[in-house]
This record gives sequence, C-alpha cells and structure tokens, in this order.
Amino acid sequence: MRNTIGHNVSLTIFGESHGKAIGAVLDGMPSGIRIEDKRVEEALAKRRPRGTFSTSRVEKDEFEIVSGVFNGYTTGSPICIVIPNKDVDDSVYEEMDGRMRPSHADYTAHVKYKGFEDYRGGGHFSGRLTAAIVTAGAVAQAALDEIEIKIGTHLSKCAGLSDRGFADAEKDIDCLKNKDFPVLDDKAAEKIIKEIEKAKTNLDSVGGISETAVLNIPCGVGEPFFDSIESQLSHALFSIPAIKGVEFGAGFAIADMTGSTANDRFEYSDGRIVTKTNYSGGINGGISNGMPVTFRCAIKPTPSIGQKQDTIDIKKNENAELTIKGRHDPCIAHRVCPVIDALTAVIVCDILSQTYGLDFTRIINRGDKK
Amino acid sequence: MRNTIGHNVSLTIFGESHGKAIGAVLDGMPSGIRIEDKRVEEALAKRRPRGTFSTSRVEKDEFEIVSGVFNGYTTGSPICIVIPNKDVDDSVYEEMDGRMRPSHADYTAHVKYKGFEDYRGGGHFSGRLTAAIVTAGAVAQAALDEIEIKIGTHLSKCAGLSDRGFADAEKDIDCLKNKDFPVLDDKAAEKIIKEIEKAKTNLDSVGGISETAVLNIPCGVGEPFFDSIESQLSHALFSIPAIKGVEFGAGFAIADMTGSTANDRFEYSDGRIVTKTNYSGGINGGISNGMPVTFRCAIKPTPSIGQKQDTIDIKKNENAELTIKGRHDPCIAHRVCPVIDALTAVIVCDILSQTYGLDFTRIINRGDKK
Amino acid sequence: MRNTIGHNVSLTIFGESHGKAIGAVLDGMPSGIRIEDKRVEEALAKRRPRGTFSTSRVEKDEFEIVSGVFNGYTTGSPICIVIPNKDVDDSVYEEMDGRMRPSHADYTAHVKYKGFEDYRGGGHFSGRLTAAIVTAGAVAQAALDEIEIKIGTHLSKCAGLSDRGFADAEKDIDCLKNKDFPVLDDKAAEKIIKEIEKAKTNLDSVGGISETAVLNIPCGVGEPFFDSIESQLSHALFSIPAIKGVEFGAGFAIADMTGSTANDRFEYSDGRIVTKTNYSGGINGGISNGMPVTFRCAIKPTPSIGQKQDTIDIKKNENAELTIKGRHDPCIAHRVCPVIDALTAVIVCDILSQTYGLDFTRIINRGDKK
Amino acid sequence: MRNTIGHNVSLTIFGESHGKAIGAVLDGMPSGIRIEDKRVEEALAKRRPRGTFSTSRVEKDEFEIVSGVFNGYTTGSPICIVIPNKDVDDSVYEEMDGRMRPSHADYTAHVKYKGFEDYRGGGHFSGRLTAAIVTAGAVAQAALDEIEIKIGTHLSKCAGLSDRGFADAEKDIDCLKNKDFPVLDDKAAEKIIKEIEKAKTNLDSVGGISETAVLNIPCGVGEPFFDSIESQLSHALFSIPAIKGVEFGAGFAIADMTGSTANDRFEYSDGRIVTKTNYSGGINGGISNGMPVTFRCAIKPTPSIGQKQDTIDIKKNENAELTIKGRHDPCIAHRVCPVIDALTAVIVCDILSQTYGLDFTRIINRGDKK
Repeated sequence: MRNTIGHNVSLTIFGESHGKAIGAVLDGMPSGIRIEDKRVEEALAKRRPRGTFSTSRVEKDEFEIVSGVFNGYTTGSPICIVIPNKDVDDSVYEEMDGRMRPSHADYTAHVKYKGFEDYRGGGHFSGRLTAAIVTAGAVAQAALDEIEIKIGTHLSKCAGLSDRGFADAEKDIDCLKNKDFPVLDDKAAEKIIKEIEKAKTNLDSVGGISETAVLNIPCGVGEPFFDSIESQLSHALFSIPAIKGVEFGAGFAIADMTGSTANDRFEYSDGRIVTKTNYSGGINGGISNGMPVTFRCAIKPTPSIGQKQDTIDIKKNENAELTIKGRHDPCIAHRVCPVIDALTAVIVCDILSQTYGLDFTRIINRGDKK
Repeated sequence: MRNTIGHNVSLTIFGESHGKAIGAVLDGMPSGIRIEDKRVEEALAKRRPRGTFSTSRVEKDEFEIVSGVFNGYTTGSPICIVIPNKDVDDSVYEEMDGRMRPSHADYTAHVKYKGFEDYRGGGHFSGRLTAAIVTAGAVAQAALDEIEIKIGTHLSKCAGLSDRGFADAEKDIDCLKNKDFPVLDDKAAEKIIKEIEKAKTNLDSVGGISETAVLNIPCGVGEPFFDSIESQLSHALFSIPAIKGVEFGAGFAIADMTGSTANDRFEYSDGRIVTKTNYSGGINGGISNGMPVTFRCAIKPTPSIGQKQDTIDIKKNENAELTIKGRHDPCIAHRVCPVIDALTAVIVCDILSQTYGLDFTRIINRGDKK
Repeated sequence: MRNTIGHNVSLTIFGESHGKAIGAVLDGMPSGIRIEDKRVEEALAKRRPRGTFSTSRVEKDEFEIVSGVFNGYTTGSPICIVIPNKDVDDSVYEEMDGRMRPSHADYTAHVKYKGFEDYRGGGHFSGRLTAAIVTAGAVAQAALDEIEIKIGTHLSKCAGLSDRGFADAEKDIDCLKNKDFPVLDDKAAEKIIKEIEKAKTNLDSVGGISETAVLNIPCGVGEPFFDSIESQLSHALFSIPAIKGVEFGAGFAIADMTGSTANDRFEYSDGRIVTKTNYSGGINGGISNGMPVTFRCAIKPTPSIGQKQDTIDIKKNENAELTIKGRHDPCIAHRVCPVIDALTAVIVCDILSQTYGLDFTRIINRGDKK
Repeated sequence: MRNTIGHNVSLTIFGESHGKAIGAVLDGMPSGIRIEDKRVEEALAKRRPRGTFSTSRVEKDEFEIVSGVFNGYTTGSPICIVIPNKDVDDSVYEEMDGRMRPSHADYTAHVKYKGFEDYRGGGHFSGRLTAAIVTAGAVAQAALDEIEIKIGTHLSKCAGLSDRGFADAEKDIDCLKNKDFPVLDDKAAEKIIKEIEKAKTNLDSVGGISETAVLNIPCGVGEPFFDSIESQLSHALFSIPAIKGVEFGAGFAIADMTGSTANDRFEYSDGRIVTKTNYSGGINGGISNGMPVTFRCAIKPTPSIGQKQDTIDIKKNENAELTIKGRHDPCIAHRVCPVIDALTAVIVCDILSQTYGLDFTRIINRGDKK
C-alpha cells in the first residue's frame, strides 16, 4: 500500500520536494470535527526551519484544504490538503547528477525506479513530504481533542546532550506547545542549540532521540497479533526519514532489568486501575492498559552535510567525491518532533476507530479518563 | 487485520495456549518450493524450551501441514500448519482467576474482551503462539534459500552480559544453526546461562537484546512511505510478545553520531557497489541498498516470575497479592531468536513479492548478490 | 490478500478437495457470541449433497472448532474451524491428468502454479472449499442474530424454471430454514428437481439464479467510494466458484426503466422512514437506507458433466477428448445458496464493524429496526 | 479503506461536486511510463457532457498533474492529479435543503455523517468524482499500452434499444475511441439519442447496459479466493454511482444454459491455446485463461429528474414534494463508459502487479499475446 497507511482511518501522501506541490489525503475521520486553518498553520510552524541553526530555505507552507471540510467541520469524506512548492531552486541538484549522496535515497531510488525518479532535492524521499503529514496530523489531533487525548514530543537527547524526562506529562505537553525548540529544560535547550550551531560551522550535522507521551488512550484498544499498538505506531514512525530506532516504555533498557523490577504492578488508586510503574509504556499484550503510551525514536544526523565526501558516480561507474551545496539543516531532530506528533495522532485515530468505529469521538466516554 | 500480516505474502495465526491447537496459514508463496518436514521440525526445536534454565513444560510440537503442500512442494495455495496442544495443565490458572498478572495481557484482554477471553495460560496472548509463526517461517526460509537469502539472529546481550557482534556474517549465521543457545561466543554463552540459572533460583527472570542480519537482499526493494523495510519489519517484530524496542543499523547509537561519521560512503568494490560502513543497516530511504539488513530487538524479562507480587483482583475490585505457580521460563530471549528469524523470513518474502511478484524466486537473478 | 477477505472482520480459508482438511479462520468477531456446534452443523447440512439429484460422494463434514471459542462463547480471538477430508477417492483424477476440463480451473491453475498445483478434484479451486465458508458464516450469523439481522437465499430460477419472489421476506426467510431445497414455491421446487434429474440422465447439468434478502441492516452503514455495500458484497460473492453475475435491487432490469419509475420515493410510515419501492436494493450511494438489502447471483451449470467433451492435452500439446468420470452434481445452484448466506453474513459483520467497531452487537440499538 | 482501492497499484480519490477541487492519487505504478497531457484530456473529453441530450453544466475539467510525473515519465512515486471545480452554482441546492432526493445518497449520507455532509450537488457522492477516476485511468492505460492490453466499452443497450455486440473486438475498441457516443452501430446510436432527447423533454431519464472487453491479459493472473478477477473488478465497478449489476462472460444468461452448452472447450489454434466459445468471459476459477475478459454493467437511469416527486423533509419530519431544479443529464449511461474503462485499467494494472510485481510492463513478454 506504499503511500497509504491505516486500516479505518487512512493517510495517503503525495508530492516531491521540487515538484508542483505536496499533499495528504486523510480518510475515514468522523464527521463534525471542527477544523480551523489556524490549527494546521500552528502545526506547520512547528516543523518549519527557524533560528540560526536551520536551513535558509524558506518554506512558506501555504496550504489549501481542498476537500472534506464544509462550513468549518469535517464532512466524513476524504480530507485533501495541498501545499504548493514555492521557494524552489533546482540548479544545485544538477551538479551532483550521477554522484549519489551517502546515506540518502539517491542510489536506492535510482535502482528501484530505473533512473526515472525525480532526483531534485530527494524528490518523493525528501523530508519535505513530512509537511503533508503534519497537516493531516493537525486534523487528527482536532478529533482527539474532543476526547481529551493529548500527544507531545520533546527531544530527550540531541547533539549528545540530554533533556529532562516527562514529569507531569500533561503540563509538559501543554508547555511544549509554546516552545520554539522542543526541549523541556530551557538550559538544556540553550546548550543543545549551541552544539547544533557548532555542527553547522563544521559543515557537519547532529542527531537526537525524541520522547513522546500519549495521554488518555482508553484501556482495551489495540490488538495482540499482528496489530499491537507498538506494531501500528512503529510502522508509521519508521517511515519518517531519519528514524532508525523505536522503543516503547523502558525500551532497550528493559533488557537489562529483571522481571521483578520490570513488571508494572497494578493497583487501585482513587478508584481507578493504574500501574505503579510504566516500563511497559502503557501497553500490555499489544493493548492499551490506560496508562500513558510512551515511546522514543532515534533520529539520525542529517545526511546532507557540507563536507567533501567519498561516493560513487553511477554515470561514470567510478568512485568520486561530492560536496553537497544546496541548503540544508545541521539538525532535523527538533523538526521531526511535530511529524511524530502528527503521525501518532493519525494512527491513534485509526486504532480508536478499529475498536469504536467511525464515530469514535462520539462513542468514547471520557469517564474512564486517567 | 489483526491476526493477519503481509500484503502479497500473508501470515494468519490462530489458537490459544490451552485450547485444542495453534496454527498458521501462510498465503501467497510461490509454487514449487521444496518443503521437508525436517526443516519445520528443526525450526521448532530451536524455539523449544531446553536445558536447565527453561520451563519444564514439555511442548512436543507435533505439527501437521494441512494444506498447500503436494508431493513435497508448495502448490501456490495457502499453507496451513496446525500444532495440537498436548501437555496442557490448566489447574494452576484457575487459582489466580481474578488476579491480574503484572505486565501480562490478563487485564487488557479482560477489558477488551469483556471477560470472555480464554485466560488459561495467556490464551491467545501466550508466547506459545509463536510456535505457529516458526512453522510458517521455516516455509518462507525454504523459498529464500533458493535465492541465497540468509537470516540469522543471536543474543547480542542477555542477563546484562554481551556477546560479540557479527563478524563474518555468513559464517556466523551458518554457525548459529548448530547452536543450542544463540550466542556466538561460547564463553559468553556459558556465563549467560549461569546468570539465567541464578535468576531461576531467585524466582526471577532476565531479558536480552537480539541482533539479526539478513544477507543478500537485492538492492531496490522496499518503499519510502509508508512501507519502508523498517516499517514492515518492525510492524511484524513488535507483535512478538516481549519485544519493546527495534532498531536498524546503528539504531539509537546513531543519535549521538555526527553526519560526517554516520554517513555510509558508497564505493565500487570488486565491481559491485557497497558502502564502507553500514550504520544504515542496509536501508536508505526505506529501500534496500544491497548491504546486509541488520536490526536489534529489546526483549523484556519474562513477566511470569515465582515471587509474590502486588496486583489487583478484578473480581473483588480490590488490591491483592499474587504468586504465580505454573511453569515458566526465567528467560525467553533465546527462544525469541528463532521467532524473529521466522517472522523476518515471512516479511522478506512479502517485500520481495511486492517488487518481483508471485514468482519472486524465479525472477530474482542472483548475479547481483553481495 | 488472496485467501483473506474483510477489513475489520476477516475470513481466511485454506485446504484442497483431496488434501488432509479444509478450514476457515474468522477473525475480528466480537467476544461473547454464543456458538453452538448445532448451528454450524445445520449450516453444513444445507450445503451437503442430498437427494437423487446430487453427487454420491458423501461428505461427512465433521468439523472441529480449533480456537476462538471458550466455554461456548467467542473469545474475540481468531476462530479456526477445520473440516478433515474423508471420503476421498483420487483414482479417477489420475486418468485425465494432462487433459484440461473445460470451464474448470485446471488450465489456469496449471499456468499460474507451473504444474505444482494439487490437481486432484480441483484442489484449492474445488467447490468443497465453500464448506469452510459455511462454517464461518454460521458463526457470523450467530452474531447477527443478536441484532436481529436475518439473511435468506432462495433460487429465483433454476433449470430454466422460476420460483416466486420474496413476499413477506421475514416469513420467507424463516420458512427457507426448514426446506431441503431452497425454493419458496413447493410446486416449482418439484418441477425444478425433475429437470435436474433429467439433466443427470442426459449426463448434463443446469444452473440457476439465487435471490438473497438481508433484513434489518441499520441505515447509514457502507461507504460511497470504493467500499460501497455492493462493492464489498460482490467482491465476496464473485469468489464463489460458479457465480458469473451479481445484481442489486432491480439489477439489470433497472437499465430498461425510466428515472420516474426507478426512483424509490421516501415516505414516513409508522414514524419510520421507508421507500415506497425498493429498486435500489436497500442501498443509496453505497450506503444502507434501512430497507432490505436484496441481490441476485447468476450460477453457472456445473462444468463437470459426464458427456464426452473436446479439450486439450497439455502434456502431449495436442487436441484431445475427455470423459469426466468421478462423482459430480448435475446442479449446484441449490448448494450455493447456503454459501451465499454464509459469505453475506461475514461481510455484513465486517461492514457493521467498520461503522460500529469491534463490539457492534453491543452498540447497535435495535430501536431503529425496520 | 473507503476511498482507496487496490493492493499493489492503488487509487485514492477525494473531493466534492461543489468544493474547491476533486482529484485522484494513483500509487504503485511502474516508473518510466510516458504520460502525455493529451491522453488525460482525451479521456476526460469522453466523460464530459456533450450534445443536446446532456446537462448544460459545462465542466471544463482543467486538470493538473501535481506529482509523480517528471520530464514526461512516471517516476514510481504517487501520481496526484487535481481538477479544480469551476462552473459551480450552489443556489439551487439550498432550496431543497431538508428534502431528500429519491434514489440519491442525500438521506443515507445525512444519517451516516450526522448532517455534516456537503450536500451541494451530491457532495462526495456526485458523479463528478468519476472525472478523477478517468484521469487516473488514462495513466493506467498508458502503462497497459506498452504491453498491448486494450480496453473498450460500449452501450450494448440504452433507453431500451440495443447496440450490436463486439465482433472484431480489437477493431471495435479502436473504433470506439473516435466516437462521440459509445455505440458500435451508428443507426442504433441515432435512435438511442432520440430516445434520450425524448426522455429529456419528459423531464425523465433513461439507463443502459454497458459491455466491456479487455484484450491480451496474459493467462494465469488473478486468484481463486477471494481475489478472483471478477471479485477485484466488480469491487471497483460497483463503486461507480448508478451501477447496480455486473456480469462476466455470458453472465445471467448462463443460468439458463446446460453445462454441455456453457462449457468453453479448449483447443489449439495456430499453436496457441484458446477456447471455442467464451461464455466464461476469459476467466476460469478467478484466473485469466488468455481469452478476452468481458463483462457488462447495469446502469440505472439518472435519479435527478425534473418531474415533481414525493419524498420526505427531514427537517420538518414530514412527507413532502420535491421538484429538482439544477442541471442534470437525462442519461448518464454513455458517460459511465469511459469511467468503466478507467477503473478497469487501474484494476488490471493492480492484478498484473500482483503476479508480475512493480515492473510488470517490463516483465510481461508479449509473445503470449492472443
């Protein structure tokens, strides 16, 4: 299904970095969800390059909701949002024609598509496609708002420096909405930004690790085989360019624990069932247990760097050197955070719809909220 | 799609730990693949508990190929393999009825299925279901043998102790076939087994990290959005009970690297295109680049431990204590390895079929082998 | 997805006519549905050959519910039902090896599966596979019973002779349950059976047209594009061997009407919204309008006939003659009716689940019943 | 999956009759297919209302290929084509607000989408959406051209009058390309057009039956259960508004035949395997046998008629009368023909891709052409 993901709620994306437009079709959403352009704008603004440490390519991201919204509410029909490409300069891409950028998709796309791929700016493989995902995510989040499901992502690590973890997750998520740079501890943010600027000066790049929390998912959604919450979320997350690892709850650290430590004990607390710890990331047997769903993603350093690199020239069939000109980010980890939020929102809508059906926002009774 | 995974090649599983049988239906495989019972038996033997450090439940795993194989070859029709449940003792499960085992699916299944779930031995959530996956994987691997694709998994870490990494991956994979315990370094294996035995004595359990290599996947298979090789493999892997993290190539470690280090430079070597490093795990932009596809999985410690644990009693609606009797493993990490191999084989067949069609084993020309 | 159909509720089938067993896996059904073996037995009995006009092959159809049912209720896990093959005689099939039966799948299967197909008795293409569908349908119908959805199929035409149409559909459906031969008018049944016997004497076969009504589907389920109720049902129905046409409501006859005749006017009747006519078959724009969903299927005459027929011998690469021995039905149209009921029940469960979610039987409020 | 259809090659559509635009995303097509705007224009022209017997709404259908085509060739990435809505007049729709048009989706959409649906001109249920399908079909057909697969549809019946059937199907299909009205016999066309004009004068409408032939599908594609060629095609066809019946080969007429007549005998002819008759419509057991794939669709008379009709007013909860003003066609049967061609082309690409993989145009060897 390639560019479409989701069972009941599905997302299809299209477009190339330097083509006419990119866009998304979000299908299967309930009718009657209030959609304000402002919501989409704000989500896009989070993904947009900004500050001294980002690419100088200015992406205006003027979007148009082409279908599926009528009088400000979703109609139940597919919601198509198109973002025209504007500030596009393809001259630089001609130069490296034949020379494959390391750790990019140039070579694999060339083999797969027999030389017919749109190579300009990574074409359909460009991180720019994630802007389309962000617009769809804003719509999905509008539905989740109605049932008080909150999603937030910060960088728990970037450029080798750590942020603090989620403490009061609800407050932290609210707080992240107003931050330019998705790091909870402002002092850590400052240091990280300095490291990114340093990488930029070195014509190099850095990566990071994101941490996401999803609050108020009702207990009992998800599946054992083969559609565990972990399966459905990781499927989506691993399609985001640059993500090379996904872990839920304690993740890789759980491998070093003993069962007596790692087991999350249940208890009644204020009449509700909770677990004393949450090493499972809110998921037992693939199904939500009512605790926050938490996961982390490993984001690789941007492969586009200004340093001269060894590579191959597939036109000449020989080894070659390449200095990528163009405009690129010394770090994309912070820009990936809103993309993770967006895809998570879409997949959570899909997961809810699998259990509660088309009108999940009307059927879910928030009396069970934790 | 719940218990079915895959686009063109699909796997459906069914059964409960203490029901009549478990089984798998593998559909979409090419016709004409030689299937010997011995292959399936060997794969099941790898997953079977053994040694002093495993459950004393003896799982005979007598399987029957019910359909899809005729005169020793696949017919192209769905291959159903059934494994009857035999050495089954449900008396112990009655005792804890109402008391939810921590970090098990007892509670989430209870909420999702309204009390109608088969709670005996974890029911459909039992690790026993993975035996069905292993039989399907043996069939899938038989097809991959024809095109020289090799898959092997060892424990790069278990009980806090490390194994060496893959060196000559092809040799290492062959070597793993003859090992009782999937650790490359025999001395490390000894130490790990001692730690597992210690955990058993403590009525506790340990986890581990697996490492898998898939060799000879042709360059150009997989997709950018949303069916990257990482997406398709992680979707499958995260449905294996106990897996809480999946990372490809350098994985989470790549977050700390700079782009100038992490980028995998291409070069011509003996006339073939390779990369000097393989931090990308053989995948660029979701598509195979011809290098080994490598990934690691975090396997949590078995949640069934003999120690007394706090929990809830959902029949009495109160906090309670629970001592799980039954028979269980102090470690399942080593038993998960053949399950990872099996699911990987199925998904690789599916990915190949997406590019090469139904008869992928006939179409793939192994001249491109790396 | 080949042998699996359905989005949320899915059916997978496996097996060959002369293999060890056939079977079905029904997944995604709500938990807590009462399943009695008797229901499955009765459904199978309807499909079984009987009377003077049927094959003499005695199919015992002893089935086993292997998984997904616990203490007499569905658990929410996949329900696998296996039917072992017993009264199997493959001697006759050897004789025609190489000579392709006209209008059978012998030739197409041979090309598709390169000679590895199980050719005995049609293998996976055999009508026998529909027994597996019937068992799954019995389970699906048990769920539909809880929300008063009734499904019934009779032969509106067979061997060139007509039955009367549905009058009081609810009564007629109840009445069909107790009939050996699914024709509403007993006199018509008698005449039809005589025609079938005549065909048998002539070593020939006859076909027919089935008519199905589905009562009490709630208004508002189904989709416009591409999952209209017509789309989802026809997809399933056209996989039944022998079905070559499907029409909803007035079907092909509507092509000759004018809009002023064909339009189904809405009106309030006893406080409920109905249409004065039902030429649309209960579906407007792919979505149920609350009226009975009605459709007809064209069932071709059994292609296995005793007369000598021209054909090819693909072993000798020459034209040949063939006299099919074996045992076969001079008419299968009446035996297809319970298969249509069964597949319809499965697809209706899936369609309901798309709108109402996993627990559709608990959520649908039968106050809206028509 | 609602607005997305297809396994390997998939089509997603979006838009509403009176919204900003409609469009299609065609994904999974091979790279390197030559796409000329002219091809898309010609296909759209066939669907456009024309002549005295059509709606006076002028649909300009200026389309834009937004993605997936680079330098005139498909890239392998999703192809999005957008058609802005222009000559839009929604004043007339306000008038009937609350009064449900008979045999339209007004009422079912209202129930399903709780009053949030875009009711203007049928919204997402409008036949206008089929223009998006036509653009995708033009791209799919461009791929099929490379392997000489031809698709053509004529009206075998319209307004109660018959056209002749296909004779030399290849010639007939070529001939249909240059016809304004898709009827093979020019005299029949004249008579039919007169009947349509008469219906228009009567403020009424007429329907018809289409007949389609697909030539040169290789033998051996398609599946038995549940993805027979009939299943996959009918699924798509029944999502076209107005289609209420689909039959393959002899279709409903086969029900009256005997097996000895209906069976298609195989024979060697000029060294190739053919059948002497083609009552099976080129499909045995769900799989192509190399003969032309043929089918017919029942197209209902346009439900929008100018006569006063009884209906309900759901705002007032009472019976009402309705005279639809707006602009509408007295017949859409001829305009459905290019939509059938288009959807068929898309589904045939998908079916080929299931067997031959992504690069089906490169792998299929037309030496087997019949």
